[in-house]
Formats: sequence, structure tokens, C-alpha cells
Amino acid sequence: MHTETATGTVPGVNALIVHAHPEPRSFCSALRDVAVHELEASGATVEVSDLYEDGFVPVLSWHDFTAPVEPAVLRPMEEQAAAVSSGTLAADVAEQVARLQRADLVIVNAPMWWYSVPAIMKGWFDRVLVSGVAYGVGDVKPFTGPLNAKRALLTLTASNEAADFTAERAGTLETVLRPIVHGTFRYVGMQVLEPFVAFGADVVDEATRATYLAAYSARLRELVAEEKTISP
Amino acid sequence: MHTETATGTVPGVNALIVHAHPEPRSFCSALRDVAVHELEASGATVEVSDLYEDGFVPVLSWHDFTAPVEPAVLRPMEEQAAAVSSGTLAADVAEQVARLQRADLVIVNAPMWWYSVPAIMKGWFDRVLVSGVAYGVGDVKPFTGPLNAKRALLTLTASNEAADFTAERAGTLETVLRPIVHGTFRYVGMQVLEPFVAFGADVVDEATRATYLAAYSARLRELVAEEKTISP
Repeated sequence: MHTETATGTVPGVNALIVHAHPEPRSFCSALRDVAVHELEASGATVEVSDLYEDGFVPVLSWHDFTAPVEPAVLRPMEEQAAAVSSGTLAADVAEQVARLQRADLVIVNAPMWWYSVPAIMKGWFDRVLVSGVAYGVGDVKPFTGPLNAKRALLTLTASNEAADFTAERAGTLETVLRPIVHGTFRYVGMQVLEPFVAFGADVVDEATRATYLAAYSARLRELVAEEKTISP
Repeated sequence: MHTETATGTVPGVNALIVHAHPEPRSFCSALRDVAVHELEASGATVEVSDLYEDGFVPVLSWHDFTAPVEPAVLRPMEEQAAAVSSGTLAADVAEQVARLQRADLVIVNAPMWWYSVPAIMKGWFDRVLVSGVAYGVGDVKPFTGPLNAKRALLTLTASNEAADFTAERAGTLETVLRPIVHGTFRYVGMQVLEPFVAFGADVVDEATRATYLAAYSARLRELVAEEKTISP
């Protein structure tokens, strides 16, 4: 995926970092800070949705729809599509959708909890990747979805070591992340970059942390320099 | 797993149904109702944590800990273990933990959203399966965890058809569910039963729904009649 390593900046990269960690001094939050710094230094425009800081509500509910088409029975997919069409998504959802639509690089930055993302991040998927924007648009098939001009990067800290990811346990890293990487990001059409996973992040020493941060910085500089659209 | 099919009841089965769907008239909620009915009819005691109805907050935060041991930096795993030890978990978490501890059959009942559970259910995992109760107890190793006297059943409705679950897409059903079935339920020691998945639940006709509900009823009657502890 990373064949182009030119160091020049590509003007016009709009990055959205969706960040979810309850502790601003966590290593996960340090990765967020590194991303903001490197992307801005590379000339990108950066927006951050800090879900904890912003008090993002992760629970999809009637609240999402200010003018439901079928108030008797909540059918989330149908209501999302209708609310997109009529411009009646709740303000907090609409704001996140607008950020998503502005971005051409989306970084999802979170700790791995129970072999997935924290609930507040899962709720961002549930509420923001709405039918009518992220999928279910016209006759576009899954996996060639409407967000195909965007790149997506999953950046995770994991308390587990790399060796803990085996088919006999929760799965290989590839199968554990596949519901997100493929079932979510690819499903909505995004070009998915190789995930950045910091293993053993609870227990690594300062030198290892510094190595991770340096590797992540380098990765981000490379990303900004790459062609915007990368083949899947 | 289901070698015993005696129809007699086993006294003393305590079931906890953790349910998450925003629509009480959904097919997912109908499965919940069937479970309550069948389990009670079979002589089990049933508690229901209806996460939407109860307004369950799925976001792990400082709120969970009424007397943090390290208020300067939130380290969830350490604070959970300390709060269990000192009895200072927040009341809403402590209530769910007590329900979990009382149960010897735990049914997680939800729709599949983005190849996982809804955020509100993920938050139940994040906040309720606490270190000090569900794992991290003494020198017990993962997969032989402290909740090994409990059985767990994952009951899902999926808009996808069974044929949509392939290794080339989000994964086979087995790998998609593995982070929950193995990385969560088995990890805390529970004896995991074969998941019950109603595929194509958005579009099935009434006859197919009725078939699903009848199959689920039969499955539940069998569960109650089985030995409480089933080998993994």
C-alpha cells in the first residue's frame, strides 16, 4: 500500500481524527496528539472529534431523528435514510456526519477493549455512519460504497501482546479487526490503510512508548505524502 | 453440547437476560419476550437488564468509581479492581455486577450492528465485566476465569443473510462473533453455548419469524433442562 514515499506535502488533505479515551494522559491520547501535530506540520487540515471530551452520546435512539417518518416503530436504517434526505438528523449526529463528509482521511483512534473499540466509539459507528450517507445510497453495492474517496486508518492501543492474537483465542489480529476494517470501513467504501496497533500498551516502558510514537509519526508523514486514493 | 434433552426442569436456574434494542416491537425484543416466557415456564428465575428501557449509560468513565485510588490518571482496569475490593463501584455498575453474579445463565440479546453489538451493549461489557470480578482475580489464568460456573448464550438478530458471512468480507460467522464468544465470554471463564442468530431479520416474512421464535423456544427449554455446567 505504501509504495510512494515522497516527502512533499499534498495540499488539501482534510483529516478527521475520531478519538475515544477517558484519560487525556493515556498513551492512546498521546497517539492522538502525535497525529494532530504531524498532520498539521505536513500541511493537512485537522479536525478532532474527541468523543469523551465532547460528551458524545453513543446510544442510537429516537433522539437521532427530529422528524421521524414512522413514529410508531423505530427502524433505525429507514429513519436514518429519511432523516438524511430531509435534513432532520439530530444536531449532534449531523455535526459528526458533516465532519466525516469533509474528511478525506479518517483516523479512528482508541484503545482495544474486549477485542473491539470502547462503547463510545462503537456508538459513533452506529449513529454517524448513517444509511443515506455511508451506505444504502441508490443502487451502490456494499464494498463499493459512497465514501470511496476517503482513506481510513484504525489506530489502537492494546493491553494484549501481538502473540496473544491467535485463531484459538479471540482470533488473529486480522480476523479480530475485520468487523471494523472490512465490515465497517470497507463496507462504506473507504480505502482502508494497514491498522497501527501499539501492543502491550499498558505495560511498555518509556523507551518502547517513544519508539511507538516515532513510528507512528513516520507513518503519518508518509500517509499525507501518499496519493489520496489507494487501491484496496 | 446438547446431549441431554430431558424435559424436566432443573430447579434453581437463575437467568439474566441482557437486552439491547431501541424498539420494544422489534423482532429482537420478541426474542427477549420468548426467552422470559420459556425460562419462567421451565421454572427458572429470570432477571432482565433492558439497557434501553433502563437508560443504561454505556460510557466507562470516572463516574464508575466513587472513591478512585489514583484520581490523577484514569486507569480503568486498576480502578475497577480497587472499586470491587473496596465496594466503591458506582451504584448502576454495582447493580449490574450483582445481577451477573446471581445468574448461572447469561443471555445477551441484541441486534447485530456493524458486525458487533450496539454501543449500549458494548458498554455493558466495558463497565460490568470488571477486573476483580470477571477477570484479573488472583492468579487465575485467562480462559479459566472466575465466572466458569455460568453459561452464556449470545442471541442476535442480523440484517445480513447467513451467506453474507465469508472470510473475504467481514469474516465467517465464527470469526465475526469470536471477539465476543471467546475474547469476552470465554475469557471471563463462562461456558459458551452455540449462539442463536436470526439471519435476515429485517426482511423475513411472518412465517419465517414464527419459525425462528419456535426454534428459539425449543432451544431455551433444552437449555434449562441441561446440566448447568457444560464443557466448553
